[in-house]
Amino acid sequence: MKIAVIKEIQPGETRVALIPANVSKLTKGNLSVTVETGAGILAGFNDSDYEAAGATIAADLKTAIDGAEVVLSLTGHGDALIQLLPKMTKGQTFISMMDPLASPAVAEILAEHGINGIALELVPRITRAQSMDVLSSNATIAGYKAVLMGAASAPQLFPMMMTAAGTLKPARVFIMGVGVAGLQACATAKRLGGVVEAYDIRPAAREQILSVGARPVELNIEAENTETKGGYAKEQSADFIARQQEAMADVLAQQDVVITTAAIPGRKAPVLITEAQLNKMKPGSIIVDLAAETGGNCAMTVAGETVSHHGVTIIGPKNVPASVPNHASQMFGTNLTNLLTLMATPEGLNWDFEDEIIRDTCVSYQGEVVNARLRELLDLP
Amino acid sequence: MKIAVIKEIQPGETRVALIPANVSKLTKGNLSVTVETGAGILAGFNDSDYEAAGATIAADLKTAIDGAEVVLSLTGHGDALIQLLPKMTKGQTFISMMDPLASPAVAEILAEHGINGIALELVPRITRAQSMDVLSSNATIAGYKAVLMGAASAPQLFPMMMTAAGTLKPARVFIMGVGVAGLQACATAKRLGGVVEAYDIRPAAREQILSVGARPVELNIEAENTETKGGYAKEQSADFIARQQEAMADVLAQQDVVITTAAIPGRKAPVLITEAQLNKMKPGSIIVDLAAETGGNCAMTVAGETVSHHGVTIIGPKNVPASVPNHASQMFGTNLTNLLTLMATPEGLNWDFEDEIIRDTCVSYQGEVVNARLRELLDLP
Repeated sequence: MKIAVIKEIQPGETRVALIPANVSKLTKGNLSVTVETGAGILAGFNDSDYEAAGATIAADLKTAIDGAEVVLSLTGHGDALIQLLPKMTKGQTFISMMDPLASPAVAEILAEHGINGIALELVPRITRAQSMDVLSSNATIAGYKAVLMGAASAPQLFPMMMTAAGTLKPARVFIMGVGVAGLQACATAKRLGGVVEAYDIRPAAREQILSVGARPVELNIEAENTETKGGYAKEQSADFIARQQEAMADVLAQQDVVITTAAIPGRKAPVLITEAQLNKMKPGSIIVDLAAETGGNCAMTVAGETVSHHGVTIIGPKNVPASVPNHASQMFGTNLTNLLTLMATPEGLNWDFEDEIIRDTCVSYQGEVVNARLRELLDLP
Repeated sequence: MKIAVIKEIQPGETRVALIPANVSKLTKGNLSVTVETGAGILAGFNDSDYEAAGATIAADLKTAIDGAEVVLSLTGHGDALIQLLPKMTKGQTFISMMDPLASPAVAEILAEHGINGIALELVPRITRAQSMDVLSSNATIAGYKAVLMGAASAPQLFPMMMTAAGTLKPARVFIMGVGVAGLQACATAKRLGGVVEAYDIRPAAREQILSVGARPVELNIEAENTETKGGYAKEQSADFIARQQEAMADVLAQQDVVITTAAIPGRKAPVLITEAQLNKMKPGSIIVDLAAETGGNCAMTVAGETVSHHGVTIIGPKNVPASVPNHASQMFGTNLTNLLTLMATPEGLNWDFEDEIIRDTCVSYQGEVVNARLRELLDLP
């Protein structure tokens, strides 16, 4: 069975879907891996590294894909998918990030083309699937990098320093939303010497915040049920959000760096910092908004830009994992390899729809949209 | 006695010579401080903050300087000095960074204009003057920030991480030159979780490297006398440098991030990384060259730019302290305040040339170049 790794089509993408160590593992399992030439170069991997791991190098995209049972990519939606679709043939399986909850039509398009699609965002949050969870991998990278972005822009150093030129006060860093990205941001800001506080609407986050050495902020407002069955933060009512914002304004006014990480899968990100709250923040303070790509947690965020509002700098980064291409590719590739190890045999993929992981991630199969969540979003019976 | 703080003239400068806390201390000592409007704004201090600390706000540069006994600035050389000189009057004292060892003519120009000049780079490295040492303050900021620049550009995370997607190896960070900047870089890279090694030609640096948790690299080549009386690294012979470079190539080839900090006051920086060594480094590795402004420690460094050489990224930052304007101004202003506390009385400056600090830093006094080091560099008797 041939697995194809393509050179990513999405502009600005630096990562690659498998690294040579992943290829090694798959080829030892008698799977055949073909890598499009130059696919790993921006992540630090040469064609020769892939060849040494047992891969075949293909001279172009078409050669890489031709005859492959599985095609792997990082970005399988938008323009990248539109360019890729005509190159694939009926019966092939496409495994990628697809943003399916925001754009469920991707499942229909793949089904129409007879492509079996597996959307990596849909890996269930169960223990057995942790090692395949690309969202957690990306969030780990993003949380770390957000702190570096904040520290690079901050007008002060993070650590307290007692110097011959006096004592420098440590930076106050505040993390909003404490999932994987938020916890990693807490840990990284602590490492750098900041005074770190964090907030999450889920009461369970309190212990997690403490576990990475940060201080949980309590707003003393009555909470609603805040966590979905899957462990994600649940969308809150407008009234709850208003009360939260009011209590939050005072907390925000004390911070030097704020990192926001609140995302709701498939939905616009909730606004956690309004213009009114921004106006109360210290001039010179920095916001790094990790939800920039889905609308932003801050009212003034512009995705892909750094903007200034009354002296507050608001950084709205896009595709943060691509800024750490080596480690991000390692994590993504390992996630994919673990999924392939579950499904791939030398004879072909094992489509066991009794397996929750396969059932939840498969969006299209043999010309049909087969995913229950997507069928609901698409109003299919 | 009136002290004037000007809005910095040098393009890209964000710092201010005194912060409101410094003004408070000086005005409590019955000194009068005038601040040019907007002088502190980029460092996070408004006119009203200065007024609350007891300063008078002047509407423009001329008003700020008129009648002042002392004029304070960060950059008192080059175009900034050329613009400032016509505004100052005979008998005024100008205290600033002046780069006097590289450009000793600054002392002659000030003397010709009847300006008494104090060059802050010349503060002696004695215990009593530590609190006035602006070079150490700047080096502290630069060492910290160099690590952030390296980490922001690196294709991998700094800390080791054991994730569900496998173990991420920590970044290997190598610091060349372990003065104040190098030690701060070691400490910051350690904080961020890197595996940190360091090298300095001064054997005494070994203990200092260990004290911040880094590993000293030994090259096992015979050393010359490597430290000046003042505690700076001494310039080495060409033969020594060649042997050092050869042994260093293997060390460099293993690194992910290299930070170079070797500067010789008033001279071109020594080349520590040659093109031949660069060619052996890992693609994707990063060099941050803190000596970029004085010619660079790396052969391919371009000051103020980020360049790439065979996949190695070489960052050559200019005026790094200005990228952390708040804390950098606090440190600079505290250094200046300590110097003023030594010299300034409500009636005027106390020019006690028996005091080593005043003797060493004063470059011009009552129309004469009075500094022994500068007279020698200028071939004055």
